[in-house]
Amino acid sequence: MDLAGDELTDAVVASFDGSKDERTKTVLSALVRHLHEFAREVELTEEEWFTGIDFLTRTGHTSTGTRQEFVLLSDVLGLSMLTVGLGNKKPAGATQSTVFGPFFVEGSPEIKLGDDLSNGAPGQPCLVSGRVLDLQGKPIAGALVETWQADEDGFYDVQKNLDGPQNRGHLTTDADGNYSFWAVRPVAYPIPDDGPVGELLRAGGRGPMRPAHIHFMVTAPGFSRLITHVFAAGDEHLHDDAVFGVKDSLIAEFTEHPAGTAPDGRVLDQPYSTVQYDLVLATDEETRAL
Amino acid sequence: MDLAGDELTDAVVASFDGSKDERTKTVLSALVRHLHEFAREVELTEEEWFTGIDFLTRTGHTSTGTRQEFVLLSDVLGLSMLTVGLGNKKPAGATQSTVFGPFFVEGSPEIKLGDDLSNGAPGQPCLVSGRVLDLQGKPIAGALVETWQADEDGFYDVQKNLDGPQNRGHLTTDADGNYSFWAVRPVAYPIPDDGPVGELLRAGGRGPMRPAHIHFMVTAPGFSRLITHVFAAGDEHLHDDAVFGVKDSLIAEFTEHPAGTAPDGRVLDQPYSTVQYDLVLATDEETRAL
Ligand SMILES: [Fe+2]
Ligand SMILES: [Fe+2]
Repeated sequence: MDLAGDELTDAVVASFDGSKDERTKTVLSALVRHLHEFAREVELTEEEWFTGIDFLTRTGHTSTGTRQEFVLLSDVLGLSMLTVGLGNKKPAGATQSTVFGPFFVEGSPEIKLGDDLSNGAPGQPCLVSGRVLDLQGKPIAGALVETWQADEDGFYDVQKNLDGPQNRGHLTTDADGNYSFWAVRPVAYPIPDDGPVGELLRAGGRGPMRPAHIHFMVTAPGFSRLITHVFAAGDEHLHDDAVFGVKDSLIAEFTEHPAGTAPDGRVLDQPYSTVQYDLVLATDEETRAL
Repeated sequence: MDLAGDELTDAVVASFDGSKDERTKTVLSALVRHLHEFAREVELTEEEWFTGIDFLTRTGHTSTGTRQEFVLLSDVLGLSMLTVGLGNKKPAGATQSTVFGPFFVEGSPEIKLGDDLSNGAPGQPCLVSGRVLDLQGKPIAGALVETWQADEDGFYDVQKNLDGPQNRGHLTTDADGNYSFWAVRPVAYPIPDDGPVGELLRAGGRGPMRPAHIHFMVTAPGFSRLITHVFAAGDEHLHDDAVFGVKDSLIAEFTEHPAGTAPDGRVLDQPYSTVQYDLVLATDEETRAL
């Protein structure tokens, strides 16, 4: 026995013949074949292999309860966006999905329509509103809208040493499908680049910036879950998003207003912005039919 | 812009156009292409993606100064053996390479020829000896021989809570190229399967066993470094090594003897074993010529 080349790959693939189920066997076999093809194609050196082992180890050690460096790695390699595309085909007219990102936190504060969830985060006040609709344009009442975003300095709350959440919360839509909340106007921000993924970006000659956006996750009984962003029109990084998440249909106009009375009646003594974006969900049935 | 499918892959590959050097660009581009091909081929679901992120994160968290779970992962996927094969082509007559494994430790104790490096490790005493030779059969004097192995219970010293090393050491060959040391007779052992890699093996219906072996790393000025094992003939796991490392030419006979005087003059009051194996190095030049 001297396993080398294709024989080696065949032996490793065959070793998974007794997998606990067909799907496990399919995924592990394909993983081995593509991993081996990669190594053979580039004639991976042992030094590069060590570099890879060290990179993955440090990526693991950088991942904590509030920082997920492997999600970030998947994001910058386009794997997240690819998986989102494979798993979230949406009918025409439905709001499209994009990457989940590493900054979602379970158990965000519950707010009422129109509440301010910025909680002291630096930035220009921004009224975010719209409706959650079905494909026929009918409002979905009681939809759960989770939202999270970075502040004016480009940081999510979990990246700062805070006692409580900022720019993060969830609400349920009213009878007309409305959602609305005050946060801060999002800005373009760098993904965390002080870890292994930052090294990778620099080695690859890439920047870390993401165009300004607000994260949404929307669920409603009978409808397919929507995980997406709303991007700010005109952002200079719409065309070089570090995680390849931009879709034209997800870009919305953020309008700046002078101090005064906002559309929801709130009186502001400083300039503020507004953005409106309707989130359109497909039913489980409509999604299955694709 | 709506990056999906091949367009997405092309965009990610193109993002590495400004890599710091050609090699980095080649490796990262190929990595992205094969990673995406894998995900597309199996239509990776988001749940499976999460499972993968979680698996990699736990693999990182399981890796410490004395346990390298990513090396183990590479080993069981055959990637280590593949990389060894790509990077260590050896001329006919030279000792073949196999996997490095996760249990090497820098700074092992220096010993003299014939010393016992078992240091109290449980197991039957075993005299390991042979010569380090060049391709013409001439002895290589002053070659550095590093060796490490598991004890009778299947554990390396670093897997136990010990004050000092066991079954681990290095020596330099004498004028006739001889090396020799006492350790314990190696046994088949399971790779550590209480972590994520163990889960993977169980999901894949695979066992964790490796056939009995002794690790060697041999270096000498002007010669290509040799990293290999010597496997015990007759071991029941020679044909299902969990890390695919067995080569026929690396199998040697371990002979058991009754208590008495060993070939090196040491008197033993218990049965012991002996094994002889010559380690043949190719020069840098002979290796380059391949
Ligand atoms: Fe984000
Ligand atoms: Fe070993």
